[in-house]
Amino acid sequence: MVVRMLIAYDGTAYCGFQVQPAVPTVQGSIESVLSKVLQSDVRVACAGRTDAGVHATGQVISFEAPDTTDPMRLAGALNGLLPGDISVIDHAVAPDDFHARHSANARSYVYLVDTADAARPFLARFAHHDPRAIDASIASAALDRFRGERDFTSFVRLAEGDNPVRHVYETWVDETDGIVRLGITAKSFLHQMVRGIVGTVLEVAAGRRPVDWIDEAFEARDRAAAGPVAPAKGLALTSVGYEDIDWTTTSDLWPWARATVAA
Amino acid sequence: MVVRMLIAYDGTAYCGFQVQPAVPTVQGSIESVLSKVLQSDVRVACAGRTDAGVHATGQVISFEAPDTTDPMRLAGALNGLLPGDISVIDHAVAPDDFHARHSANARSYVYLVDTADAARPFLARFAHHDPRAIDASIASAALDRFRGERDFTSFVRLAEGDNPVRHVYETWVDETDGIVRLGITAKSFLHQMVRGIVGTVLEVAAGRRPVDWIDEAFEARDRAAAGPVAPAKGLALTSVGYEDIDWTTTSDLWPWARATVAA
Repeated sequence: MVVRMLIAYDGTAYCGFQVQPAVPTVQGSIESVLSKVLQSDVRVACAGRTDAGVHATGQVISFEAPDTTDPMRLAGALNGLLPGDISVIDHAVAPDDFHARHSANARSYVYLVDTADAARPFLARFAHHDPRAIDASIASAALDRFRGERDFTSFVRLAEGDNPVRHVYETWVDETDGIVRLGITAKSFLHQMVRGIVGTVLEVAAGRRPVDWIDEAFEARDRAAAGPVAPAKGLALTSVGYEDIDWTTTSDLWPWARATVAA
Repeated sequence: MVVRMLIAYDGTAYCGFQVQPAVPTVQGSIESVLSKVLQSDVRVACAGRTDAGVHATGQVISFEAPDTTDPMRLAGALNGLLPGDISVIDHAVAPDDFHARHSANARSYVYLVDTADAARPFLARFAHHDPRAIDASIASAALDRFRGERDFTSFVRLAEGDNPVRHVYETWVDETDGIVRLGITAKSFLHQMVRGIVGTVLEVAAGRRPVDWIDEAFEARDRAAAGPVAPAKGLALTSVGYEDIDWTTTSDLWPWARATVAA
């Protein structure tokens, strides 16, 4: 049968989700524990292959397990054996054709910026510290420009054969206690897409560029025309959308949860 | 002149605030950087000598500095040189007779308990994970019992000559997203007093003991009569009260900030 799990992790110690030889990865940690518990080689699929240092409050994985598996007991066993920076938050038996990546119809990310003069130690792992005067309302107007079905060539790291067109469904920005949060939802994302967008938005919100610069960057279809890649540690995959299950609220924990609807 | 600073730190990597030979301490880190910047040996006083692994969002330090010192520039230099887990949040010139510990008239601590079945990775450094069914309203009733001027012998680690009587001004408990928060304010605290109180309250809130057990523990004047010492990592010094300055709101950052007044 197919089992799916909702996963949260602090990505600080990992070279990203995807397994790579000789370095710690989230996938590697999970597969190693799963294979031990199920006493067979297990490969997991994930909804979003987060980069090194990127976090997740709502990652989804799926994998094939023996029909006799009790998902609840398996989740308990995993939480007992996984390191403290990875947790199984929820679990379910999935339809036979379910695949964490292929079945996903939306991914949401939240990016945290600590704008206080002195970086708050408690946010050090999860927020990018940018002490420039970041104007949240300008950031909101700037992030708006990324909505819709667009060619994102200027904002991403394209691999050969990648289709640069993606559909951004929703964006939002808010600010609490000097923490500016940028939220973005799309059907799917290209490599470094959220961080390329955020790096560009922050240039505008810090007053270095006008909002219209974003339109010019889109038109240029050239990575050099946009802003820098924002640091990984501010980014978290917060939820994944599926047609048959709503897991979006389960891991909605501050500071990633969207408290108020701000466009 | 006397300079005072509002300090925040993630205490995970430190053997407490107070300087000790050959181990990392918050005081040691601060004094080493301060002495470098001011080019003389500086000793700092603090409001609360937090234990190993205990955090602070509102610690206050004071120290003697040359009259030509610009506190703002000094704070900036410190933030540039201190490790990322210690920050200077605010700074001011203090009255000549100011002393971070002696002048303080109140200390407030907040203790975080993650009660979710699976510990949330983002709280792992700052909350004690207790998956027992913790009833916040019972915790509130239990913590109430510690108010007033009492002999705390049963809940602390007394050193020879310690006066076991302390005055607890205020307590509060609330719960958000499965995080139970316990707040306590007193003129001053004895060693391991908050953690002894919290460990006792959690026994009651988990249903292992009746609330009246707390009164019995007070009467016994015996450490063995009360609950265990709650783990250090859930505890943070959130604010210190002084007559001449109100710094209590500056570092009020979730999850330590008191969002709603709950008694």
